[in-house]
Amino acid sequence: MPRQAYVNGRYLPHQDASVHIEDRGYQFADGVYEVVPVVSGILVDENLHLDRLERSLEELAIAMPMSRRAIKLVSAELMRRNRLTNGFVYMQVTRGVAPRDHKFPLGVRPAIVMTTRQMAPADPKRLAEGASVITLPDIRWKRCDIKSVSLLPNILAKQQAVAAGAYEAWMVDSEGRVTEGTSTNAWIVTKDDKLVTRNANNAILNGITRISLLRVAESQGVKLEERPFTVNEAQDAREAFLTSSTNFVMPVTRIDGKPVGNGHPGILTGKLREAYLDYVESLASVPGETA
Amino acid sequence: MPRQAYVNGRYLPHQDASVHIEDRGYQFADGVYEVVPVVSGILVDENLHLDRLERSLEELAIAMPMSRRAIKLVSAELMRRNRLTNGFVYMQVTRGVAPRDHKFPLGVRPAIVMTTRQMAPADPKRLAEGASVITLPDIRWKRCDIKSVSLLPNILAKQQAVAAGAYEAWMVDSEGRVTEGTSTNAWIVTKDDKLVTRNANNAILNGITRISLLRVAESQGVKLEERPFTVNEAQDAREAFLTSSTNFVMPVTRIDGKPVGNGHPGILTGKLREAYLDYVESLASVPGETA
Repeated sequence: MPRQAYVNGRYLPHQDASVHIEDRGYQFADGVYEVVPVVSGILVDENLHLDRLERSLEELAIAMPMSRRAIKLVSAELMRRNRLTNGFVYMQVTRGVAPRDHKFPLGVRPAIVMTTRQMAPADPKRLAEGASVITLPDIRWKRCDIKSVSLLPNILAKQQAVAAGAYEAWMVDSEGRVTEGTSTNAWIVTKDDKLVTRNANNAILNGITRISLLRVAESQGVKLEERPFTVNEAQDAREAFLTSSTNFVMPVTRIDGKPVGNGHPGILTGKLREAYLDYVESLASVPGETA
Repeated sequence: MPRQAYVNGRYLPHQDASVHIEDRGYQFADGVYEVVPVVSGILVDENLHLDRLERSLEELAIAMPMSRRAIKLVSAELMRRNRLTNGFVYMQVTRGVAPRDHKFPLGVRPAIVMTTRQMAPADPKRLAEGASVITLPDIRWKRCDIKSVSLLPNILAKQQAVAAGAYEAWMVDSEGRVTEGTSTNAWIVTKDDKLVTRNANNAILNGITRISLLRVAESQGVKLEERPFTVNEAQDAREAFLTSSTNFVMPVTRIDGKPVGNGHPGILTGKLREAYLDYVESLASVPGETA
């Protein structure tokens, strides 16, 4: 069976899955999305992702296209049809299809598309060496807390990172403080062993991995500070890393070409990655965590 | 014959016209668009629109999906098939279809969608009374000079205008100065008869109607100033109006509920609208202005 996608109530071969040219996602970036990681057949933090999906939709005054329960059933069915055990489920909800007009259309149903993708675990070489990041001015809009598909600035910044031979770009606000990566959250470990990541407000997308890792770190007795940090502070830090639903915890060993700490993945970073993976593994035994 | 759309080389019934769910326009807002007005069968300023399309694409490192000549031929053919004499041609170009990944895909062809829409001339009642606008903080990204489909902040602001019973929202930068409307440019006429509109840089989209109206105003001997103006200056101005490819020149008579000038459409505004419409009419006799 070829890979399947779910589009507004129907399972279709992925290659034939399409949306109308007047879907507002296509014409206005009028929609939101989630990427739910799948590890050993388990949807990681599915409920937290669906909480955030609901919040993003609420901020845009878009109704849920179907119930949480229905979304969970479709996720499970897509995973079954696509034999997905490691990778992720992608879901995108838009305001729906209507003749192009900026204002919200009346009486239009929100549209949902769901897909899955197989993905190998993180590249062991990158994990061993750590990722390099560049820094760039954050030119995005002021509601980065909404997980919208209005991602043009993010892809332009990611492409600049790729062109510079880096893995990710950390974006920097007008006061010289890191906001986040183009699709990841940014973290440092200070010389006095504090774990620092920017506080979640309109300037960043509050990553689900960020939320869970904060909880994991707390349970490990790590000292936490949720506050902005500058590029200089990050370059002078003992350790740095990034988090996301596809990277989990990835060490950062170079920032704008300058080594972080001793230039190798940090010890606390490694411990937190292990503790996070233990947490993910523990989800397999939690009843009701999957659909 | 039902209305037709053009999608990557094919003419299709509009209702069946679709793009793949991994079109980067749909998943990342990774694309640009143009709206070319059609008056009495003439494409208004088609070359200027195509100049801007090329510039927007260049800024995003997307190749033209086909030649200018081909785009003109498709515009003309769509107008013929859809019997379009008054309305507009809409064209959207995206980076193409590729497995979802922030960085630019390699070896992918840009995708193009073109549609037409019949549109009645501006509502005579609104022209006679003038439009009301509200003002809102401009929360958009810092490259508004690119005509991208990353329009989520624009539609949210437009919807706030509609909810407030207004026609448009003027967005205001951190220094209290108007940038532009959600899909229009903003203009005032000062008490000493100067026509003022914001200078075109990264903070605004340089409207084609804006460009042509500046030329028309100059030919009429109107004193011009391209500079930012504050909300207060606009409320205290003698006249105000907005421009776009679908509104042409539309008087603005209320800003945040406060009447502009005597609360009626301004005299110079009316003259400029007439002069602009004369300009549009003159295009009908310019050889080569249409495809």
